[in-house]
Amino acid sequence: MKQKSAEILCIGTELLMGNTVNTNATYIAKGLAQNGINVYHQAVVGDNPQRLKESLDLAFSRSDIVITTGGLGPTYDDLSKETIAAWFGKELVLHEESLRHIEDFFQRLGREMTDNNRKQAMMPQDCTVFPNPNGTAPGCAIEKDGKVAFMLPGPPREMRPMFDNYVIPYLQKDSDTILVSKMIHLFGIGESMLEHKLHDIMVESSNPTLAPYAKEGEVQLRVTARVHRDEDAEAILQPMMNKVSEIAGEFIYGIDIGDLQTAAVTRLKEKGLHVATAESCTGGYVSKRLVDVDGVSEVFDCGVCSYSNDIKEKVLGVSHDTLVAYGAVSEQTAREMAAGVRRLSGAEIGVSTTGIAGPGGGSPEKPVGLVYVAVDSDKYSEVLKLNIPSRSDDAREYIRYIASSNALHLIWKAAGFLD
Amino acid sequence: MKQKSAEILCIGTELLMGNTVNTNATYIAKGLAQNGINVYHQAVVGDNPQRLKESLDLAFSRSDIVITTGGLGPTYDDLSKETIAAWFGKELVLHEESLRHIEDFFQRLGREMTDNNRKQAMMPQDCTVFPNPNGTAPGCAIEKDGKVAFMLPGPPREMRPMFDNYVIPYLQKDSDTILVSKMIHLFGIGESMLEHKLHDIMVESSNPTLAPYAKEGEVQLRVTARVHRDEDAEAILQPMMNKVSEIAGEFIYGIDIGDLQTAAVTRLKEKGLHVATAESCTGGYVSKRLVDVDGVSEVFDCGVCSYSNDIKEKVLGVSHDTLVAYGAVSEQTAREMAAGVRRLSGAEIGVSTTGIAGPGGGSPEKPVGLVYVAVDSDKYSEVLKLNIPSRSDDAREYIRYIASSNALHLIWKAAGFLD
Repeated sequence: MKQKSAEILCIGTELLMGNTVNTNATYIAKGLAQNGINVYHQAVVGDNPQRLKESLDLAFSRSDIVITTGGLGPTYDDLSKETIAAWFGKELVLHEESLRHIEDFFQRLGREMTDNNRKQAMMPQDCTVFPNPNGTAPGCAIEKDGKVAFMLPGPPREMRPMFDNYVIPYLQKDSDTILVSKMIHLFGIGESMLEHKLHDIMVESSNPTLAPYAKEGEVQLRVTARVHRDEDAEAILQPMMNKVSEIAGEFIYGIDIGDLQTAAVTRLKEKGLHVATAESCTGGYVSKRLVDVDGVSEVFDCGVCSYSNDIKEKVLGVSHDTLVAYGAVSEQTAREMAAGVRRLSGAEIGVSTTGIAGPGGGSPEKPVGLVYVAVDSDKYSEVLKLNIPSRSDDAREYIRYIASSNALHLIWKAAGFLD
Repeated sequence: MKQKSAEILCIGTELLMGNTVNTNATYIAKGLAQNGINVYHQAVVGDNPQRLKESLDLAFSRSDIVITTGGLGPTYDDLSKETIAAWFGKELVLHEESLRHIEDFFQRLGREMTDNNRKQAMMPQDCTVFPNPNGTAPGCAIEKDGKVAFMLPGPPREMRPMFDNYVIPYLQKDSDTILVSKMIHLFGIGESMLEHKLHDIMVESSNPTLAPYAKEGEVQLRVTARVHRDEDAEAILQPMMNKVSEIAGEFIYGIDIGDLQTAAVTRLKEKGLHVATAESCTGGYVSKRLVDVDGVSEVFDCGVCSYSNDIKEKVLGVSHDTLVAYGAVSEQTAREMAAGVRRLSGAEIGVSTTGIAGPGGGSPEKPVGLVYVAVDSDKYSEVLKLNIPSRSDDAREYIRYIASSNALHLIWKAAGFLD
């Protein structure tokens, strides 16, 4: 089997100017890696036909697959399609179905369709058009002499589903083996410690492979088997899953579960439980993440964001004495907030956060990054004291994110103790 | 005047595999743009000496400045310095001061310094060393025959201050023009409509230039002037700012303000006002975004996430009759939620959201994407009925994000009517 390689070419002056972070390249790179396609080069060029052409020349001199993003918009400087079609010796022709989709799109939005939007329905002759349910610009694949270019729209919300639903199947259509993987989600252990524990089995095993990915405050471990289309992937994956579970089971909160909020909500649903949130420093981050999960209304009724002491007393019933004696950022206040919101809402589980998110407000006794996270329930109550490192220029976001992750993990944990 | 151009070359297998988002390229690109240095190409390569050498050849064939990130670490696959030094025909020599810094660094951490960390103090002969107070790997500049390469560490926390404090001053030492820009933030108008309205002045003007950037639900418009160091940038920018204001003033919510939450919090602070939030479908997204802004505690005390009717009645005081007659997703409920949370908290402004975020829960009368956003204050109260397009796989996130943006915009607007 010939090992395929691809290059990612992102087109957009906003990327060159640093106005947009290139998450598209990351997303595509990850998807290609997961599907066994090597990427040795990524590049970014502006909306400039000459430089785009040179970049195509270079990319196709090294790889058979080039995936582009951006430059499919309606404006006069969006020239990707013209340039790439020309590289393949093709004209642009009107794609009726895409035009109807664009017209529908504007009608549904109740906005006037301007003439330049018609341009988005002009597609390279003989290409495979990829519909874009999330925007106006369709994408496409264009192929000649063993070289294939994929053109995807720039907005990530449009690009991602098109990549997953059209590009990956297109690339897989003539491969005889496929990659099957499971993602193990861990919380409470760092990447280097996990790698240390798993080092021997990571080095020994080539199928399946084991690869850790650090995410903010958590680690994911991808177990990937390369199998023939009719082979049983499960039989190859399961022994490795068991080994990992023996070594790091206490940190695992789910398999292919997506994230902490999904793990928490799923478990609450399974058990018919409810959670209520009382947030100070996280300011709604915990409830926001819970509500990210579809169907959360079965398990979540009530969240209170009590940023002042007054609201902590009045709405959550935290005692005035506690606030005076220990302060808002304390184990005692966290505990009373969790119990208070549980009482207010009638939920089986209450969770709370209170801390110093910074950059101001810290002191030697209570520095920026000090956060208490509490959970209250009939069978399991706990208060965690976290010292979240206040690093980098987005420390405020990071501290609140990590605090909210701990709160979600405590919800998941508490639900495990309840029936 | 010769216009300088630079290329950004990020080195790291983790970027090619999609495990890390390349925020370094964005940061450097932005810094270069702000300093009048054009960037026409960005590239990413792995930790592979041959491909790195080829990438250097290419970059220096087009530009005089190449800025690299990554590959300065202690491990055997970190080969950037060796490869780049060799390109300039230089050896690596021990830099004593860097070695002492690395030794100190480990001592302070209380960790043992391993032998491979010594490698980080080996620097290209005749280079300018950039110290790294935030890590162990120093950076450097190496120059020959009008070509200069900057080597910066990969971790953003180390790279960013080094870029700002050493690379930019190094580059500015012999430049005579700079770029000065202002960002106009607009809400409530789409990119193509804005471009349609501004088309003529965008095409006509070359200094300053005008460039729109679409962000989720909003548009930013960058006005950029190229000026000599002693020239008055304001005098070039202001007439263009005025023209934009004449054409699209009703949509502008700020200049260089960052985002809607910062605009809202800034205005509340200026006027000594407070806001309280009552969220249903957004589930804490409005309060989370408000709390993103440092110093929000001056203006925000209380948020309630009332996901059930029970909590809407009990905590926010929405009348039972209203909920029965009109339902939770209605103009009437939205209005009572905003008024209710204002009453509960004593804030001058109350804001609320209630809607169908989907994917389930929609009906022909109340489809997914229907959201009411209300604001309540003494001088300005309003309820918006939004039909947010339910497109893409993350429609739930998108609907809630756009709803929360509208809520933030209403806070900003209401604060404008109050003293």
